[in-house]
Amino acid sequence: MRLRNKPWAEDKLLECPQYVVHEPEQQRGKWSEVFAVEQPLHIEIGTGKGRFITEMAKANPNVNYIGIELQKSVIVSALDRLIEAELPNCKLMNVDAAELGKYFAPGDVDRVYLNFSDPWPKTRHEKRRLTYKSFLAVYEEILGKKGEIHFKTDNQGLFEYSLMSFSQYGLLLKFVSLDLHQSDYEGNIMTEYEEKFSSRGNRIYRCEVQYQN
Amino acid sequence: MRLRNKPWAEDKLLECPQYVVHEPEQQRGKWSEVFAVEQPLHIEIGTGKGRFITEMAKANPNVNYIGIELQKSVIVSALDRLIEAELPNCKLMNVDAAELGKYFAPGDVDRVYLNFSDPWPKTRHEKRRLTYKSFLAVYEEILGKKGEIHFKTDNQGLFEYSLMSFSQYGLLLKFVSLDLHQSDYEGNIMTEYEEKFSSRGNRIYRCEVQYQN
Repeated sequence: MRLRNKPWAEDKLLECPQYVVHEPEQQRGKWSEVFAVEQPLHIEIGTGKGRFITEMAKANPNVNYIGIELQKSVIVSALDRLIEAELPNCKLMNVDAAELGKYFAPGDVDRVYLNFSDPWPKTRHEKRRLTYKSFLAVYEEILGKKGEIHFKTDNQGLFEYSLMSFSQYGLLLKFVSLDLHQSDYEGNIMTEYEEKFSSRGNRIYRCEVQYQN
Repeated sequence: MRLRNKPWAEDKLLECPQYVVHEPEQQRGKWSEVFAVEQPLHIEIGTGKGRFITEMAKANPNVNYIGIELQKSVIVSALDRLIEAELPNCKLMNVDAAELGKYFAPGDVDRVYLNFSDPWPKTRHEKRRLTYKSFLAVYEEILGKKGEIHFKTDNQGLFEYSLMSFSQYGLLLKFVSLDLHQSDYEGNIMTEYEEKFSSRGNRIYRCEVQYQN
C-alpha cells in the first residue's frame, strides 16, 4: 500500500478513545471491560482502511471486533469509518502484530482474520509474512483452544506458502476455496483490496485453519 | 473417460507377462523379484493410457514403476506403450486400488502418484474419490515410513477436497502449486489428460504430501 504521510494522524487517534484502545496492555485478560457486551472477540491483523472489520461488526452484533493496524496514516481511515458507523462492538489498535502477546492473555481472542496480508515475496523476507511460524505461535498464544485463523488473499504465492506453513505448524485445514468469488460461499465481506483486485479478474483464495490444542 | 468395449483386451494382457503382473498377491513382500534391479518402487493409481508412468520410467531408470488401472480397455493402451518402450523398470497391474493391501506388504511401496483422478463431484460419491480417508489408509498401509503421495489434477473441487482430506488425515503438505504450468517447477511429465486440459487454459494443481508415521 502506498502510504501518504499524515502528521496529524497520531493526534486524531488520541482524540477518539471510544474507538481506539490506547493502552491495550492494561486490558490484557479483561477485554470484556472495553466493550458494551461480553461476547466472543475476533481480531483482524492488518486491518488497513477498515472496511472488512466495520462491515463484519455491523453484520455480526453478537461478536466483538478489534482491527489491528501498524500504520497510523492508514488506520485513521478505519477510524473515520468507525466514527460514522457508531458501532459498539468494534475497536481499533495501532500496534505491532508480533507483540500481540503483550496485549492479549491466552484465550482472550476467539478468531484471527488475515486479509490480503503483505506477501513479502522474497525468500529473505519470509519471517515478515503474517503466516510465518513465529506469527502462528503468537496467534496460538492468544487464541482459545481450537482457535481459528481465517485467511484470504489474491496472492497465489503467499497462499501456497501459507498452506504449507499451516500444515507444518500442525494446523487443521477446515475449509479452502481456490476461487472464492466463483464458489457458493455465502456471506463474504470484501475488503477494499479484494474489490479492486477481483474486479481485475484476479482469483481470491480463502481458507480456515484450526489449532489442534 | 469414455470407454470403448474391447473384448480382446483380457487376452492381450495375458499374452504379455513381462509387462503385466498377473498374480500380484504372489509378489507381496518380494517385489524386487519382479524387476531387473532392486530399487525404490513408485506406483501410479489410475494409470490410464500410461503416458505418465512410461515417461517417468524412461526419465528415472533408478526407480521401479507400476501403473495400476482397473479398466482393461484402457490399460491395453498403456501396454502398447510399454511394449514399444521396452523398459525394464515399468510394469502394469489390472487391479482395484481399494485392494492394494493384498498385493503390497507394509513398506513395499515408496511413493504413490495420483494423476487426474476421477473427481466424483457428488457428495454421495465422496467415498469413491482416491483421496478419501479410506484410500489414504490403504496407501499408508503399503508405503514405507514418511511415504509420500504426489497428486495433480485440473479439477478445482477435487483439489480443494483433497487438501482438506490430507490435512484431516494428518498428512504434511510439503509442496503445493496452484498453477503448475505457470510455475518454476521443473521436470513435470504430463499425462494425456494434462496436455489436453492445460491446452484449453485449465490450471493444473499439484501437491506432495507425506505421512508422519
